[in-house]
Amino acid sequence: MLAFQTIWFVFLRDFELPFNYAILFIMYSTVAIDIGASRMRAASYSKNSTEPIAYNQVATRSEGMPIEDRLVNLIESVWPADYKVKSIAAACPGPMDPINGIIVEPPNIPEWKYFPLQEFLQNSFDLPVSINNDASLAAYGEWYFGAGKGFSDLIYLTISTGIGGGIILNNKLFIGTAGFGAEIGHTTLVYQGPECSCGQTGHLEAFASGPSIVRWVKSQLEDETLRNLFPEGDLTAKLISDAAENGNELAIAAYARAGKYIGLAISDLLHIFNVPRIIIGGGVSRAGDLLFEPIRNSVKDFVISDVYLENLEIVPASLGDDSGLMGALVLSREITEN
Amino acid sequence: MLAFQTIWFVFLRDFELPFNYAILFIMYSTVAIDIGASRMRAASYSKNSTEPIAYNQVATRSEGMPIEDRLVNLIESVWPADYKVKSIAAACPGPMDPINGIIVEPPNIPEWKYFPLQEFLQNSFDLPVSINNDASLAAYGEWYFGAGKGFSDLIYLTISTGIGGGIILNNKLFIGTAGFGAEIGHTTLVYQGPECSCGQTGHLEAFASGPSIVRWVKSQLEDETLRNLFPEGDLTAKLISDAAENGNELAIAAYARAGKYIGLAISDLLHIFNVPRIIIGGGVSRAGDLLFEPIRNSVKDFVISDVYLENLEIVPASLGDDSGLMGALVLSREITEN
Repeated sequence: MLAFQTIWFVFLRDFELPFNYAILFIMYSTVAIDIGASRMRAASYSKNSTEPIAYNQVATRSEGMPIEDRLVNLIESVWPADYKVKSIAAACPGPMDPINGIIVEPPNIPEWKYFPLQEFLQNSFDLPVSINNDASLAAYGEWYFGAGKGFSDLIYLTISTGIGGGIILNNKLFIGTAGFGAEIGHTTLVYQGPECSCGQTGHLEAFASGPSIVRWVKSQLEDETLRNLFPEGDLTAKLISDAAENGNELAIAAYARAGKYIGLAISDLLHIFNVPRIIIGGGVSRAGDLLFEPIRNSVKDFVISDVYLENLEIVPASLGDDSGLMGALVLSREITEN
Repeated sequence: MLAFQTIWFVFLRDFELPFNYAILFIMYSTVAIDIGASRMRAASYSKNSTEPIAYNQVATRSEGMPIEDRLVNLIESVWPADYKVKSIAAACPGPMDPINGIIVEPPNIPEWKYFPLQEFLQNSFDLPVSINNDASLAAYGEWYFGAGKGFSDLIYLTISTGIGGGIILNNKLFIGTAGFGAEIGHTTLVYQGPECSCGQTGHLEAFASGPSIVRWVKSQLEDETLRNLFPEGDLTAKLISDAAENGNELAIAAYARAGKYIGLAISDLLHIFNVPRIIIGGGVSRAGDLLFEPIRNSVKDFVISDVYLENLEIVPASLGDDSGLMGALVLSREITEN
């Protein structure tokens, strides 16, 4: 991309007129950030592009420097020389308070308990800043640029170490009245079922997150006749999905079981939201049809009426790791439009 | 209320002007209808009043005349002589399609399967008509006139023979993309738990509707040591609630159990909607604190964070049997405003 001067002043002097015209050219940009448990990513974008002007990523945690200072350095590293930055938006780990811009209690960044990240970034860069939940912004990114393009209503599920959700209603991000909504991973499917990471029981996350799939396979391996299916090594969701692709019955059953419960949760959501599109992302969803087929079959089994299946499509996310960053981009552009 | 002529024409003739002024006085009204399994009610209302100009009710079903003709007669019986009726709205039994105005498959009015009620009423009265689900309109009535007044977001539950739901988001009725949403009674709490009226298992309705409460008490009475608690007679939810008020332990336990599961379902809803107000109506809710105390305790136990309890109130509906009719009134006025 060609470099432009940030500001061009062109003074046209016309002595037949009693004053000067000043014509001002400014190239605008925004900065989007995605803060994950292991790495932080930032990129700057010019007005109508999704190709970053500059992109960078760093490990979230490192010796000797607070995370927020590392974040400021990261942002500065993508600051575009030839553009005026108008706003910054960040996808952050939950639970967080997007309305007041406060990180609440992220399990993987304990030092940010009740950290007012929005205010901190506003003060650091003297710009308008907006922050939101990473799963919500991933939904926003998929809605604007990805698998949800053109749909005014959709539900997004990210299935990975935990299960997060994002909801778009009427072309707007829906986060609940006080901003703590869309926690789809923490809806009950089997009260007194397996324990969830949150301490409650039988939530979707306790059945279908990566660690829950691993836990279930381990429990099956207590049966001696099955032990030969995973003879050695530390089990991971990735290893199980690879085994499933190679025809390992237990691994296939593990994804089928996860898919069944995801489908059950989706049916409950359809009874409430009756949306035409469900998007599923996150590491576990990379298992593809091994997971999506059981999900689609399960939804058919569990809806209370076929009206919920009309026009319904359950599709994989299309932006991969970038959905959160892309959602932050949409959000950052929104700030400057209002 | 004073009777007025429907239309007053006052002709002011002024010979200094080249034309006549016509000043027109019209008193406007709307008609609201609530169609239940056993009775249909209709009322006409003048512009800013909730006191009906005329009110009438009839049994929904009777020998010799189709329900839709009985409905037309009912509406005519409340037609105000001195007002021009601008619109009609009706609360109807689900499942129904409010967007296309079609009754889909009401279990108690099987002759209305796929009946285009909205079109039928439009043609019968040559007026704009809107129809919606009775639970949604009960939520709408409570939001506008009752226990939800002043709240832009709330969830309403009606607990009776079945469990219905109504959702208000951003001061609007939320019915899902294609209009079949807000079916809160059919969200799963215990997959493979008790059978639900819809054929699925472990839905909220299968734990806490009137018939589900009766079913649970009956199952407990199979234990001989408990049989003396309900020595005789046909069990009904009302009889159980009366017994609970008189200190019957089994009856108290039955409402405590129903309340626990309602609270569990509300927690799941809070994780998604994070609303500040939950309103509970319907026959079973008349048990009062016997039900509301276990509900409130259960919500405290089951939310994944106290942020969901901040500003939260779980309150009884305040319009009683009239919430659906009042919701239809709000809807009928809305038609004429747009």
